[in-house]
Amino acid sequence: MDNLGIVFLSEVVGTAMLVLLGCGVVANVALARNKGLGGGFLMVNIGWGLAVFAGVIVAYNSGAHLNPAVTLGLVASGASEFGSGVPVNVLSILAYIAAELIGAILGAVLVWLAYKQHFDEEPEPASKLGVFSTGPAIRSYGWNLVTEIIGTFVLVFVVIAFGHNGDAGGLAALGALPVALLVIVIGTSLGGPTGYAINPARDLGPRIAHWFLPIKGKGSSDWAYAWVPVAGPIIGGVLAGWASLALLPVLA
Amino acid sequence: MDNLGIVFLSEVVGTAMLVLLGCGVVANVALARNKGLGGGFLMVNIGWGLAVFAGVIVAYNSGAHLNPAVTLGLVASGASEFGSGVPVNVLSILAYIAAELIGAILGAVLVWLAYKQHFDEEPEPASKLGVFSTGPAIRSYGWNLVTEIIGTFVLVFVVIAFGHNGDAGGLAALGALPVALLVIVIGTSLGGPTGYAINPARDLGPRIAHWFLPIKGKGSSDWAYAWVPVAGPIIGGVLAGWASLALLPVLA
Amino acid sequence: MDNLGIVFLSEVVGTAMLVLLGCGVVANVALARNKGLGGGFLMVNIGWGLAVFAGVIVAYNSGAHLNPAVTLGLVASGASEFGSGVPVNVLSILAYIAAELIGAILGAVLVWLAYKQHFDEEPEPASKLGVFSTGPAIRSYGWNLVTEIIGTFVLVFVVIAFGHNGDAGGLAALGALPVALLVIVIGTSLGGPTGYAINPARDLGPRIAHWFLPIKGKGSSDWAYAWVPVAGPIIGGVLAGWASLALLPVLA
Amino acid sequence: MDNLGIVFLSEVVGTAMLVLLGCGVVANVALARNKGLGGGFLMVNIGWGLAVFAGVIVAYNSGAHLNPAVTLGLVASGASEFGSGVPVNVLSILAYIAAELIGAILGAVLVWLAYKQHFDEEPEPASKLGVFSTGPAIRSYGWNLVTEIIGTFVLVFVVIAFGHNGDAGGLAALGALPVALLVIVIGTSLGGPTGYAINPARDLGPRIAHWFLPIKGKGSSDWAYAWVPVAGPIIGGVLAGWASLALLPVLA
Repeated sequence: MDNLGIVFLSEVVGTAMLVLLGCGVVANVALARNKGLGGGFLMVNIGWGLAVFAGVIVAYNSGAHLNPAVTLGLVASGASEFGSGVPVNVLSILAYIAAELIGAILGAVLVWLAYKQHFDEEPEPASKLGVFSTGPAIRSYGWNLVTEIIGTFVLVFVVIAFGHNGDAGGLAALGALPVALLVIVIGTSLGGPTGYAINPARDLGPRIAHWFLPIKGKGSSDWAYAWVPVAGPIIGGVLAGWASLALLPVLA
Repeated sequence: MDNLGIVFLSEVVGTAMLVLLGCGVVANVALARNKGLGGGFLMVNIGWGLAVFAGVIVAYNSGAHLNPAVTLGLVASGASEFGSGVPVNVLSILAYIAAELIGAILGAVLVWLAYKQHFDEEPEPASKLGVFSTGPAIRSYGWNLVTEIIGTFVLVFVVIAFGHNGDAGGLAALGALPVALLVIVIGTSLGGPTGYAINPARDLGPRIAHWFLPIKGKGSSDWAYAWVPVAGPIIGGVLAGWASLALLPVLA
Repeated sequence: MDNLGIVFLSEVVGTAMLVLLGCGVVANVALARNKGLGGGFLMVNIGWGLAVFAGVIVAYNSGAHLNPAVTLGLVASGASEFGSGVPVNVLSILAYIAAELIGAILGAVLVWLAYKQHFDEEPEPASKLGVFSTGPAIRSYGWNLVTEIIGTFVLVFVVIAFGHNGDAGGLAALGALPVALLVIVIGTSLGGPTGYAINPARDLGPRIAHWFLPIKGKGSSDWAYAWVPVAGPIIGGVLAGWASLALLPVLA
Repeated sequence: MDNLGIVFLSEVVGTAMLVLLGCGVVANVALARNKGLGGGFLMVNIGWGLAVFAGVIVAYNSGAHLNPAVTLGLVASGASEFGSGVPVNVLSILAYIAAELIGAILGAVLVWLAYKQHFDEEPEPASKLGVFSTGPAIRSYGWNLVTEIIGTFVLVFVVIAFGHNGDAGGLAALGALPVALLVIVIGTSLGGPTGYAINPARDLGPRIAHWFLPIKGKGSSDWAYAWVPVAGPIIGGVLAGWASLALLPVLA
């Protein structure tokens, strides 16, 4: 298999792992009769953070973007190759993004299988959609977009900072842990208004799965909101890439 | 003592530590008059994850499987020797599995001693069994099996990925921590429907202890369900071993 | 850009990150209709701790003080240069403190933007101020000062101990993690009476932002209390610097 | 200062830090009008675990026992010198234990100062004593002793295992973190019946402070129970030292 093929498969596997464990924790706290029902927002934050941990480990060979906002943020930061040694060009960018979306869909299907009976028993359609995709606490596309931009900016800016000073600061020795901790804190601290998609694939992929899966008693997939957790993270990621260029003397 | 004897003893000690601390946290949150009563599912997840941490540390010399699904997953992945330098053959496989089961029984007896008075005061037989063994939130052997297969697949697949890229990604420096974090997230994210046995010894060993211990006011050991948390983890572990073979170019 | 300019910018960016994520978690648990509403004190502690983690990573080049009490504590400990290679003198001290304050104001503005609608919907003025600045559970300036002195002493004393024995104890390999864990425990263990400012910039900067921002339905900025979370941390930090000098044979 | 003097001072400082942060989290969740009131058992576990983290860092030069059960467990394991290069003999053993007790008393006094107003406002004498010392959920000296023996055995046995295989397993790179995680899990998993003293100094020192401090409205210091959290940890620690000798081929 050539390098791009390996990268593609690696991102599919890693993003599927991320979404299986990330959407899984929402299923556990939100769907009827689960042992983790009502487990609280901190449990969701920790679940999503460690979902990234597991996803990064299995996608080591592609640099573990698992997120189009990370891929595009790295492009905006002027990277000439991705962590995997694959050169940055239109083909490789598309390969990363397609793999991330496919992986996310696959992960969402696995969540549905793991929690099949609880989807069947849950009476509330909104809770079912909430397992798959994010939705705003107070709907206002403009402000929801602002929140997603800020959250994703933090994610991508700090991830790029790892790359610049990681070894000096000893972070390389921690492997996938710093990114996991970063995702936990973005959840605790910026997740209140929109549920922190901060990743177009993580939101759109499971929304597509929600739309095509034969989920008992499901309601709308809320396509009207779907553009916000795609556009916000892309804008935030690209802004973070540019900011890292501007602040290179600080970060490097 | 020869190598296999050391491995045997090491797995007994490590699995006893795992089950003492893992089943212990369930006792704390579930049995009457405990200081941790009602501590929540996240506390159970963290307790089980760090129970693995402690178990792995004391079983370093056997590679710290502590779980027949890990042992059999490594076999399925084509390993020629276990982490401990012991060659993979029928005898060593049986030694690992027997030691894991014996350790799990021993750990469960220690939990009973540590929480003796709380077992005596707890009125509900199901809570007593719940300290020892898992049970389904919604009983349906087929779907319960699916959930256990998915959970154990995640455990064994990511553990094997540590072995392939651990050093490069710096994970080796973290020792027992990555596995602990992985078990925490499997709990938060896939533990809702069945209580995540993901380990035949962890479930069957304590169930045997529940059956033979003179626990005051105990009820059934629910042998009808006992095969699910044995078969599911074995199937999930073996599938993960095979998947790691198929995805070797991605992981290695 | 000269070294002091880099340090200045680095502290601005790092402290803004710290306050965005730190005050953000309070917004999430305290403001109406958030997904994390009522998430609990432990979630706040973890959010603030990991906020420090993210702030330290992006401010690596200035030694990541992010806190005038750390800057002044290092001065009191007899440091001849800051972690960044910048010599300790009046100009560099002022640059650090000014940057920390500016960064904190900037971070607070970002929190307001991220949670704009929730500030608008929250009926209680005290909850709005609580997102920005700390306040005492029981108002008594003397005892509140004591609590802040003790909390900041712990922060600065242990941070200086990292510097002395970090490498030997392997802490350098953990990068920003030890400080994050330290801030979590100061929160859990000393945060009850005053909400643990332990950082003059973290409290005064957001209070200034609260004062000038057009927050809907805001109340007083409680300037009568404002000196406590400035004076307490400065006293605690300087005492910790002196204590580290006195205990050098123990720590070094 | 000679080596034993440094060790003495180091253990005083480290144990004071441990008890300040450990007893502090109990004050926060248990005393009237605190911001962390009712924060839950997991918050207490995390607070105590990270209290050990901070204490170990500042007591690096004495090997950071901070606990007579660790000191005596190391003696029982046949150690010829403590981590600090001080030879094991009656004088050094007594110096460690005396320093640990003095540090614990000092830490408890600091907790009282940090939470002074909340002690004054708390109506319940038992809650005040609970900040300082442990007490049984169900009083039965024999079974309480069993629980403390098991908990301390786990602590000391795993700590000695760190020493044997820490480098090989990469644990040395984690510095104080593994012990902190171990204390968290002992709390979640074995803390239900007795509140996990697992350290004679941590319990007896603060009990002495409770007895002599002029705490408003305090009740009995419960001296009838005081021997259990002294004897249990000593027995458990010594048994763990002997077990580590017996299992040396497994651990080393």
